[in-house]
Amino acid sequence: MVEQAPRVGSREQGRLLAVLRDEGAQSRVALGERLELPRARLAAELGRLIDEGLVAVGGPAASRGGRRSTLVHLADELRVVGVDVGVTSVTAAVTDGRCEILASDSEECDIRLGPVEVLRRVRALAGRVLERAPGRLVGAGIGLPGPVSFRDGMPVAPPIMPGWDRYPVRDDLGGALGCPVVVDNDVNVMALGERHSGVARSLDDLVFVKIGTGIGCGIVVGGRVYRGVAGTAGDIGHIRLDDFGPPCACGEVGCLEAYFGGAALARDGLTLARTGRSPVLADALAATGVVTARDVGTAAASGDFAAASLVREGGRRLGQVVASLVSFLNPGMVVIGGGVSRMGHALLAEVRSAVYRRSLPLATGNLPIVLSELGDEAGVIGAAWSATDRAFG
Amino acid sequence: MVEQAPRVGSREQGRLLAVLRDEGAQSRVALGERLELPRARLAAELGRLIDEGLVAVGGPAASRGGRRSTLVHLADELRVVGVDVGVTSVTAAVTDGRCEILASDSEECDIRLGPVEVLRRVRALAGRVLERAPGRLVGAGIGLPGPVSFRDGMPVAPPIMPGWDRYPVRDDLGGALGCPVVVDNDVNVMALGERHSGVARSLDDLVFVKIGTGIGCGIVVGGRVYRGVAGTAGDIGHIRLDDFGPPCACGEVGCLEAYFGGAALARDGLTLARTGRSPVLADALAATGVVTARDVGTAAASGDFAAASLVREGGRRLGQVVASLVSFLNPGMVVIGGGVSRMGHALLAEVRSAVYRRSLPLATGNLPIVLSELGDEAGVIGAAWSATDRAFG
Repeated sequence: MVEQAPRVGSREQGRLLAVLRDEGAQSRVALGERLELPRARLAAELGRLIDEGLVAVGGPAASRGGRRSTLVHLADELRVVGVDVGVTSVTAAVTDGRCEILASDSEECDIRLGPVEVLRRVRALAGRVLERAPGRLVGAGIGLPGPVSFRDGMPVAPPIMPGWDRYPVRDDLGGALGCPVVVDNDVNVMALGERHSGVARSLDDLVFVKIGTGIGCGIVVGGRVYRGVAGTAGDIGHIRLDDFGPPCACGEVGCLEAYFGGAALARDGLTLARTGRSPVLADALAATGVVTARDVGTAAASGDFAAASLVREGGRRLGQVVASLVSFLNPGMVVIGGGVSRMGHALLAEVRSAVYRRSLPLATGNLPIVLSELGDEAGVIGAAWSATDRAFG
Repeated sequence: MVEQAPRVGSREQGRLLAVLRDEGAQSRVALGERLELPRARLAAELGRLIDEGLVAVGGPAASRGGRRSTLVHLADELRVVGVDVGVTSVTAAVTDGRCEILASDSEECDIRLGPVEVLRRVRALAGRVLERAPGRLVGAGIGLPGPVSFRDGMPVAPPIMPGWDRYPVRDDLGGALGCPVVVDNDVNVMALGERHSGVARSLDDLVFVKIGTGIGCGIVVGGRVYRGVAGTAGDIGHIRLDDFGPPCACGEVGCLEAYFGGAALARDGLTLARTGRSPVLADALAATGVVTARDVGTAAASGDFAAASLVREGGRRLGQVVASLVSFLNPGMVVIGGGVSRMGHALLAEVRSAVYRRSLPLATGNLPIVLSELGDEAGVIGAAWSATDRAFG
C-alpha cells in the first residue's frame, strides 16, 4: 500500500499539481492559460506527470466553442495523510490529492504520554484509515499543540508536551509511513485547512484563532503561513494581560490562556459549581464529579447567568487581544475555531464588539470575524494540504 | 537636470541593479555567481544597463587568482529624491543610486496647511537639494504621517492630515519632478531605511516603532513592507489600552497615542508644570510659555522625578503593546525611532523590561530591542530606497 514518494521534476510541474489540487479538473486549454505555459511546454510537463502517475486524463471538458477538450485531473489513487494531535486526542484522516477526506478516525490520547507512545498510536490510527481508503501515499502532515521548528520537523520547547522537546517527529513518521512528512503547529495547519476548503477559501491574508484547551493563532500572509524568526509567531495564548493575574500552565501569570480557553473555563466553572453561584454547573458537578469547559458552554447556552458571564468575560479578554492583532496585521478575515468556539455566537458577539470598538475603522470596515466552517476537520485537512504543498513543491 | 526615467527591460536587470545598490561595486565574476547567471546572459544584460546609462564599469577588482576583473557599479550620476513629511516639518534629500545622501535640507511645515501648500514646499525643497547634487533623477519616494494607499499613491482617511484624503500625491510630485514617485506611510519608509543602511541592515523580519508626535510601526516581513489588506497594518498608535482612558486626536479614547507620544507628553508635561509637581518643567513654562515633549525628555534626563515618571509610565505602556507585537510576529529585531526616542535609554529600559517580562522566551531569546541608528535620516533614506525599488523593478 505504501509506495515511494513521487518525483516532481520542475517548478512548472509543481504549479500544475497545485492548480489541479486547488481548482480541480480542467481542460488543457484552461490549464495552459491559467499557468501561461505555451502548448508544447504544457504537453511535455503534463506528459511527465502522467508518466509518474500523478495526473490522469479523462472525460470531455465543457466545450469552449471549438474542438472538445479533455479534462486533466489529479490521479484518483493519490492519498495524503493528515494528522491532528490535540492535548487529549488524536485524529487521522486520509484524503485524495485535493485534500478531500476519504476516511478518518479519532481517539482519546493524552499528549503527556510522550512522543513514543503517542506516535505509536498515530501510526496505528493512520494505518487503519489507510486500509479503509487504500491508494498511493504521496505525503503526510501532522499538527502538534505547541511550538514547532518547521524546518527541522520537530517540537521546540513545547510548554505542555513533556518529553517532546526536539523529538524527531518528521523522521519517525516518515520512516514508518514511507513518505515525506511535514510537521507544524496545530493552529497553522488549521489556518491552512480553512483557507483550502473552509470559510477563508482562497483568501491570502487571514488569522485563525484557536480556542481549545489553550489558545493560539495561525497567521497567513500572502498565502503562506507566517512563522516568525523562531517559529513562535501567533503565540497569543501567553500574551500577558495582567502582571498580577492568575497562574498559567506555562509557569507565568496573567496570560490570556490563564483567563480563557478550555482549562481556565473548567477551573472557573468548578468554582461556580462549588460555591453554588451556578445551579446548572452545581448539578453537573453532582452528576459527573467534574466540570468541563463544555459544561460551562452548555450552562451558558441554557441561560445560566454565572456561566454566561464567564463566557462573556472571556470573550471580552480574547477580543482585546484580537483587536491588537487586527491593528497590527490588518488581515482580510479573522476565523475563530477550536473546541471552545462551539460556544458560538455569544462568544463571537463579545469578540466582534471588542474588535469593532477598539480597532481602526479602516482595518475593520470590511473585516469578517467568523466561526470556523470545518470544525474538527480543519486540522487534518490543513495538515494534508501542507503535505501536498511539500510533495508537489 | 530632470530627465526621463530609465527603462529597466528585464527581471534580471532589476536584480542586477538591486544587488549593486545593496552590496556595492563588484566584479563581473562575483555578480554572475551572486545572481547565478551564465556569463553570456550576464554580459548581455549588463550591456543593456550600460547603454541605458544605469551602470558603469571601471577600476580593477581585487584579484581572485586569475585574470584581473573589472568592477561594475551603479552609474555615478544617478540621483534619487527621498522626502519625509512629518507633522511639523518636511525633509528632502538627494541620494546616489545606493541611497547614500549627497545633500539634504529640512524646514518647519505644518501638515495642516494641506496638500497644495505642503507639496509646493516639498517641490521647492527638492529642487534646491537637487541643485546642490545635480545628476540624472531616476525616481523619488515620499513618506507621509498617515495611512496611505500604496497602490494608488495617495493618503486614505488620514486622521491628522486635514485636506489630504485621497489627494493624488504621486501624480502631483511625479508631474513636477518628471520621474516615477512612490508614496508610503512614514514608518514604513523608516523601517526600510534602517534595513538598508541602519541598525537592521539586511534583516528580513523586523519591526520599526516610531514615537514622534504620534506612534506607529512599520512591519518588514521577508524583506518587504507588510501593509495588510487595507494598508493599515502596523497602526499601533490607536490600539485601545483602556475604554475609559484620555481622549485621543483620532476622536476615540484610551489609545496608546493618547497616553504616550509627543502630543501626550507635552500635555502631561504642561500639567506637571502648572501644578508645580515638576520644578524643571515649571521653569521651562515660565521661560518659553509652552512645554514640549522635548522639555519633558530634558527634565527627565536631568533627574526631575515627575518628568522621569512620565517617561517611565509611557515606556511601560508602549512596552505592553510591543510585547503583544513580539508575541504575534516573532520578529528578528525591534527598532525604536522618532523624535521621542531621543529620550533614549530610560525609555528603552522600560520597553525592554515589558517585552522580556511579557513575551515568550523563545521569541525574545535572541531579540534585539534597539534605538534607530539613522535618526532623522531613516525616513529620507527609506523613501529613496523605496523609489529605487520601483525604478529598478
